[in-house]
Amino acid sequence: MKLYESHISEFNEKSIKEHQNQFDFLGDTLDKKNINTLNVVDALAKFQVAIPSWALGAGGTRFGRFSYFGEPSNLTQKLDDVGLLHALTQTAGAISLHIPWDVPEDYNAIKEQAKSLNLKFDAVNSNTFQDQANAKESYKFGSLCNTDEAIRAQAIAHNQDVIKIGEKLGSKSLTVWLADGANFPGQNNFQTVLSNTENSLKSIYKTLPDDWKMFIEYKPYEPNFYSTVIQDWGTSFMLANACGDKAYTLVDLGHHLPNTNIEQIVSTLMLKGKLGGFHFNDSKYGDDDVTVGSVKPYALFLIFNELVYGMQNNPQNPDLSWMIDASHNIKDPLEDLMQSLEAIQEAYAKALLVDQSALKQAQSVHDVVACQEILQRAYRTDVRPLLAQARLQSGGALDPLALYRGLDVRQTLIEERGKHTIASGL
Amino acid sequence: MKLYESHISEFNEKSIKEHQNQFDFLGDTLDKKNINTLNVVDALAKFQVAIPSWALGAGGTRFGRFSYFGEPSNLTQKLDDVGLLHALTQTAGAISLHIPWDVPEDYNAIKEQAKSLNLKFDAVNSNTFQDQANAKESYKFGSLCNTDEAIRAQAIAHNQDVIKIGEKLGSKSLTVWLADGANFPGQNNFQTVLSNTENSLKSIYKTLPDDWKMFIEYKPYEPNFYSTVIQDWGTSFMLANACGDKAYTLVDLGHHLPNTNIEQIVSTLMLKGKLGGFHFNDSKYGDDDVTVGSVKPYALFLIFNELVYGMQNNPQNPDLSWMIDASHNIKDPLEDLMQSLEAIQEAYAKALLVDQSALKQAQSVHDVVACQEILQRAYRTDVRPLLAQARLQSGGALDPLALYRGLDVRQTLIEERGKHTIASGL
Amino acid sequence: MKLYESHISEFNEKSIKEHQNQFDFLGDTLDKKNINTLNVVDALAKFQVAIPSWALGAGGTRFGRFSYFGEPSNLTQKLDDVGLLHALTQTAGAISLHIPWDVPEDYNAIKEQAKSLNLKFDAVNSNTFQDQANAKESYKFGSLCNTDEAIRAQAIAHNQDVIKIGEKLGSKSLTVWLADGANFPGQNNFQTVLSNTENSLKSIYKTLPDDWKMFIEYKPYEPNFYSTVIQDWGTSFMLANACGDKAYTLVDLGHHLPNTNIEQIVSTLMLKGKLGGFHFNDSKYGDDDVTVGSVKPYALFLIFNELVYGMQNNPQNPDLSWMIDASHNIKDPLEDLMQSLEAIQEAYAKALLVDQSALKQAQSVHDVVACQEILQRAYRTDVRPLLAQARLQSGGALDPLALYRGLDVRQTLIEERGKHTIASGL
Amino acid sequence: MKLYESHISEFNEKSIKEHQNQFDFLGDTLDKKNINTLNVVDALAKFQVAIPSWALGAGGTRFGRFSYFGEPSNLTQKLDDVGLLHALTQTAGAISLHIPWDVPEDYNAIKEQAKSLNLKFDAVNSNTFQDQANAKESYKFGSLCNTDEAIRAQAIAHNQDVIKIGEKLGSKSLTVWLADGANFPGQNNFQTVLSNTENSLKSIYKTLPDDWKMFIEYKPYEPNFYSTVIQDWGTSFMLANACGDKAYTLVDLGHHLPNTNIEQIVSTLMLKGKLGGFHFNDSKYGDDDVTVGSVKPYALFLIFNELVYGMQNNPQNPDLSWMIDASHNIKDPLEDLMQSLEAIQEAYAKALLVDQSALKQAQSVHDVVACQEILQRAYRTDVRPLLAQARLQSGGALDPLALYRGLDVRQTLIEERGKHTIASGL
Repeated sequence: MKLYESHISEFNEKSIKEHQNQFDFLGDTLDKKNINTLNVVDALAKFQVAIPSWALGAGGTRFGRFSYFGEPSNLTQKLDDVGLLHALTQTAGAISLHIPWDVPEDYNAIKEQAKSLNLKFDAVNSNTFQDQANAKESYKFGSLCNTDEAIRAQAIAHNQDVIKIGEKLGSKSLTVWLADGANFPGQNNFQTVLSNTENSLKSIYKTLPDDWKMFIEYKPYEPNFYSTVIQDWGTSFMLANACGDKAYTLVDLGHHLPNTNIEQIVSTLMLKGKLGGFHFNDSKYGDDDVTVGSVKPYALFLIFNELVYGMQNNPQNPDLSWMIDASHNIKDPLEDLMQSLEAIQEAYAKALLVDQSALKQAQSVHDVVACQEILQRAYRTDVRPLLAQARLQSGGALDPLALYRGLDVRQTLIEERGKHTIASGL
Repeated sequence: MKLYESHISEFNEKSIKEHQNQFDFLGDTLDKKNINTLNVVDALAKFQVAIPSWALGAGGTRFGRFSYFGEPSNLTQKLDDVGLLHALTQTAGAISLHIPWDVPEDYNAIKEQAKSLNLKFDAVNSNTFQDQANAKESYKFGSLCNTDEAIRAQAIAHNQDVIKIGEKLGSKSLTVWLADGANFPGQNNFQTVLSNTENSLKSIYKTLPDDWKMFIEYKPYEPNFYSTVIQDWGTSFMLANACGDKAYTLVDLGHHLPNTNIEQIVSTLMLKGKLGGFHFNDSKYGDDDVTVGSVKPYALFLIFNELVYGMQNNPQNPDLSWMIDASHNIKDPLEDLMQSLEAIQEAYAKALLVDQSALKQAQSVHDVVACQEILQRAYRTDVRPLLAQARLQSGGALDPLALYRGLDVRQTLIEERGKHTIASGL
Repeated sequence: MKLYESHISEFNEKSIKEHQNQFDFLGDTLDKKNINTLNVVDALAKFQVAIPSWALGAGGTRFGRFSYFGEPSNLTQKLDDVGLLHALTQTAGAISLHIPWDVPEDYNAIKEQAKSLNLKFDAVNSNTFQDQANAKESYKFGSLCNTDEAIRAQAIAHNQDVIKIGEKLGSKSLTVWLADGANFPGQNNFQTVLSNTENSLKSIYKTLPDDWKMFIEYKPYEPNFYSTVIQDWGTSFMLANACGDKAYTLVDLGHHLPNTNIEQIVSTLMLKGKLGGFHFNDSKYGDDDVTVGSVKPYALFLIFNELVYGMQNNPQNPDLSWMIDASHNIKDPLEDLMQSLEAIQEAYAKALLVDQSALKQAQSVHDVVACQEILQRAYRTDVRPLLAQARLQSGGALDPLALYRGLDVRQTLIEERGKHTIASGL
Repeated sequence: MKLYESHISEFNEKSIKEHQNQFDFLGDTLDKKNINTLNVVDALAKFQVAIPSWALGAGGTRFGRFSYFGEPSNLTQKLDDVGLLHALTQTAGAISLHIPWDVPEDYNAIKEQAKSLNLKFDAVNSNTFQDQANAKESYKFGSLCNTDEAIRAQAIAHNQDVIKIGEKLGSKSLTVWLADGANFPGQNNFQTVLSNTENSLKSIYKTLPDDWKMFIEYKPYEPNFYSTVIQDWGTSFMLANACGDKAYTLVDLGHHLPNTNIEQIVSTLMLKGKLGGFHFNDSKYGDDDVTVGSVKPYALFLIFNELVYGMQNNPQNPDLSWMIDASHNIKDPLEDLMQSLEAIQEAYAKALLVDQSALKQAQSVHDVVACQEILQRAYRTDVRPLLAQARLQSGGALDPLALYRGLDVRQTLIEERGKHTIASGL
């Protein structure tokens, strides 16, 4: 389905007056607090989040999967879906491919399509947590960590292939997420698998183009239920340091033990110039992968507060790769992604409103009550008019979800694609 | 220190115009969504939260306690502090006493003072988790649960005494929090201690006046680190049912295992007509007892969403006893309480903005995306003008914290009371 | 594959002398502590655990599934596998069927086969957490809890069908596990879904034969990641009470929030006569479903300590239904089950060694150190000779795993069944 | 109270025959598995654990403290208590002092006393989590991390003083545990406090004698309930690397988030040569500080399995400093310590029984079932005879707890010291 500019402009027409009213009033209020509203809106407009190619179909759990209709069944359709999202929100200007699920057949066609949809190719993702149909070796007992050299070699070669595919598309980074670990005490020798992983990562790193980055993801558990080789930021950071300057840690919000202070990890990594990528989602129990901001929006704000601080004060840290990594078990994936994008922009906007110099001053005199007030003052502000304004000035919809529903997009997709398509992925 | 009405009115004068501006604009916005703003403000104005007598001094941890200056050193001063809070916020219209820390010497004088400060006496709290200087028996190994009959008898008699003290003051409820439990496997026979506790509670219940309620608090751990006799809502509910119609479960936000869905518990208890009391605080790890809303404000909103639903739809459940139960390790206790009260009112206001009929409709057609939008629409609203308006119309301060600091209240208290007073309590 | 008695007796021959030596020495040692070793061995020999029909193939996670070769592809082969397990261990004398995965085609043949293998049919399990190919209604948004009456009716009818199937086989109980819940705040009205669930359970209960029991399982999360309708024992207990005398709570070890004191729950339920069934597995993070005793064997012992106490002291509680409910992602399922059975028997044996009268005495004088010593004395005992003896006297193998490997059973199964069979189930 | 050798030998006499019987039988059994029992016993006899000076009195929680009678009220009495423990167990051959609670008045006398009791001075511990009576600056808002230079300077100087005191006693290491952190979001700038802490540690490190080590402890929360500056092993490791070769990470078992895989952390640190010290205790919920092995003995065994592996395979890692760091809220502290020492020795003994070469072989072919069997075979062994033998050959008691009770030691201590002494500490 193609979304025309006229769709958007006609839709915006209806609510533009009320929006302008809300935006102006908020702008006046923020002015009095010496906040430059236009700068905030510009920052929001520039902030782009990649959509992973596997997030456009229904997700599932180990207990099964309920289908969603009209899923994209090939890479072209996936790009179309992200293009639609981006047209509506002006926030989803990139796609992150998963190999081997999304190997392009015709690179030029795919690149042309992406260009026409105003999409970039963000980090490419390798997969060594599943066995492919034609694979010689199995990853059942680990990939880059495996005691079996042939298995490690296959996994290394796969990652190197993924880099090559990414190069053809204009990607500039590789994300390595390893499921490697153990389900039972004794299954692995911790030191052996860690050393193997370090060496394997170094082999991949060696073939990394000069202008690329390698992101090393960590996760405490699942799908392994006793140990994971790269279990926490400390391990990822150690491995990134061992690999070299182009290797970074990637933080996925759902990959932490209960009660972890994630914003502190973010801050430490940026201080050390080693935070490379960020995967957004939300969760109440484990790596639930539910809609961003649907469970702990204040935690997300606190994390953004550190991200904003780092982006403003840590030149040693590179620009980050932002991506949504959520599952869509019971919602329309496109609607779910719109809700996630809104929550991300909201947290970012609120973090931009924090009065950093007042905060620094309050911290220096240990005025804890004032510190809390400063953060909460920013958080309590209703920033929806700022988000709408940022979309408006970029050509997006004032209310993306309402337009999506108004145009009956899903129904059109079902008619175009059929009911029982299945997106490649999990 | 006495706060005069003129203090407040003069202070409000300065910001009344800006407040009116914000309130009117928000009112207009809500009007368009068919929300009766004045009803919301009235509900906020009526909502009163009790302050426990032990919350007016500095708290501590097992690693020590850093003192705070100007603490109240007797019940009269404690009432003064709550009176001050109430004058500023118009939300703290009750005090909850802890026995034996706060036994009045002159009941009439205390009652007169409370009346003059416009304070009620909320639930009285017993203490069987510490040994009193002159006590015959020790609670080291439990109180109401103890295998030793003499210890149980002492603990029962203490609770009955607390009821009598409460009667003299006009309280209408008793809160029983038991630390009883075990630090080690095998220490207790679970069935014996549960049966003992049930029988002891029944003995206390027998002497409960007809118009009183008994609240049974639960907690999974601390100060016992293996088991607690009343470990969860299920146990409390079972005991309340065993005692009778006047016995209820009390929910303290910090008394749950990691990741517990507290709003669901609240909803179940109200459906069954057995939610009696509520203790507010916040936490990231355990029973941290930090300022309400400082860690998980969205969770608080979700809980209030259930409370509002229950108050509107569950006539089988009585009016609730609301209390703040937080510790103040590094903040001025009065400032901390003002922040907690603000957070409670904020969550309540946002819950009142939820469009219940739209929500019901969305739930009935399983429109999960819409359900989330409806809740978030309410939550994202900046309700601070509503809170300020509720205070204003009750004679409180538009910005209580600013006035408290503007008047240098703490300094005055230090001058009046001296630096090194220590409030009775933990 | 058929296991002949001679296989076992020849194998036992080799190690019988060393076994007798170990058993006699341990017996002498226990004698001196006034423990009747033969009684313990008899109790072990009588203890039988059901194997669920879905546990005989490889499990998986939401990230995929690595196949295992030689899986049973129909009910007959599943019974064969359990028969083999039982012949080796003499502990797995029952099978628990899952409907619709295991509907018998020929009831008489299946019953004959079970009889010949010395297997009973334990609880039958219904499935309303997945949509069946030909189903009219979908359980995507819940089954017994659903706001849609037609969906509830379908789920109720399915449970009633399962009872009928169970009756034909000689089962005497129905286990209801509901995945029903919500992935997002607001998705469900908690009171509506709880009331619907209660009513649906009552409808099922009405058709329950007089000599049957209904087990109501609880679980805090997964596959729903915000709330589960029957989230904890308190909710299950409440529902069981609402249904009637034949309704009980079922405890699955993996279905608890982090740090839950499960043994206390077990004890409370037995005191109230409401513990009906028990699902064994182990876990470190969530409902990991790994081999029993592989992560927290001491916790398992403490739970068995309460179970033994209840079986000896709570005539109000019925005999329990015991079942293993684990997943086998990377181990041979039959080997995994042998390890689980061994761990269960070990915990049970150690619990039987606890000196209950000494414990009671130590508890009554609050001798906490002695209480701990008494439990640890039992736990530290190496009970493997007792387990081997119990197997021996029932005709099982001294070392089931060694015999299984010695006979190359899996290889035979692969030859008989082929490599790429897939067991029905998850 | 003085314990004479004759006390011990007379006591041992009574049970020596039964012990010999058990030890011989176990030895024979282990022999058949090619385990050199005498080597194991020798290793156990050499393994010595330091007792912290603050662990000899009753502990408490923030809800209060129940006293224990006969507590040591000065350093001499504390040494006596540890001496007694060591005489009984032959495992507690060191004491770890806490400054300023235990500053010796007469260094020579204290050293003489220690020598006569066969005790060494292990790591010295600094205290910047409490304010001392005469302190100029307060640590209420942090010590080494503080934004206030004068406070940092005081904390640095204190640590340097502690080193000097340790030098006079023959200690060779300093343990730095920092409570520094924040109770509320926004209170600290994470990067500022981390950088300050790094610089402060470097200042302390500069004055560290050449043959000393500095141990940097980490902890996720408590007494701060939002963030701790050194929150995890990754942060400690980073800081230790920044300081230099003599700086190491110290692992305290209770200082982890729920479900952390601690054994993996231990293994990683030893691989990198950076594990310096180890604090033993146990816990179910948080930093509960209960008796070692009383809650999760299998986890302790798995940790020891990594420690043993590291001690045998990681020459890059130095000898470790072992210490018990538990609290004694309801047990006689000396009895509690005996139970902890027994649990430590038990876990160590079992880890020594693991067949490392069989394990390596099973790991290399991914025989997960066998890996588990190998660990569990060691764990299931009843090693109490080995522990008793190790004590016996060192001159300790076969059953220390029984002798302690038989001699009525606590009663003697009460008579000598009085009932209401209070040990310095928490």
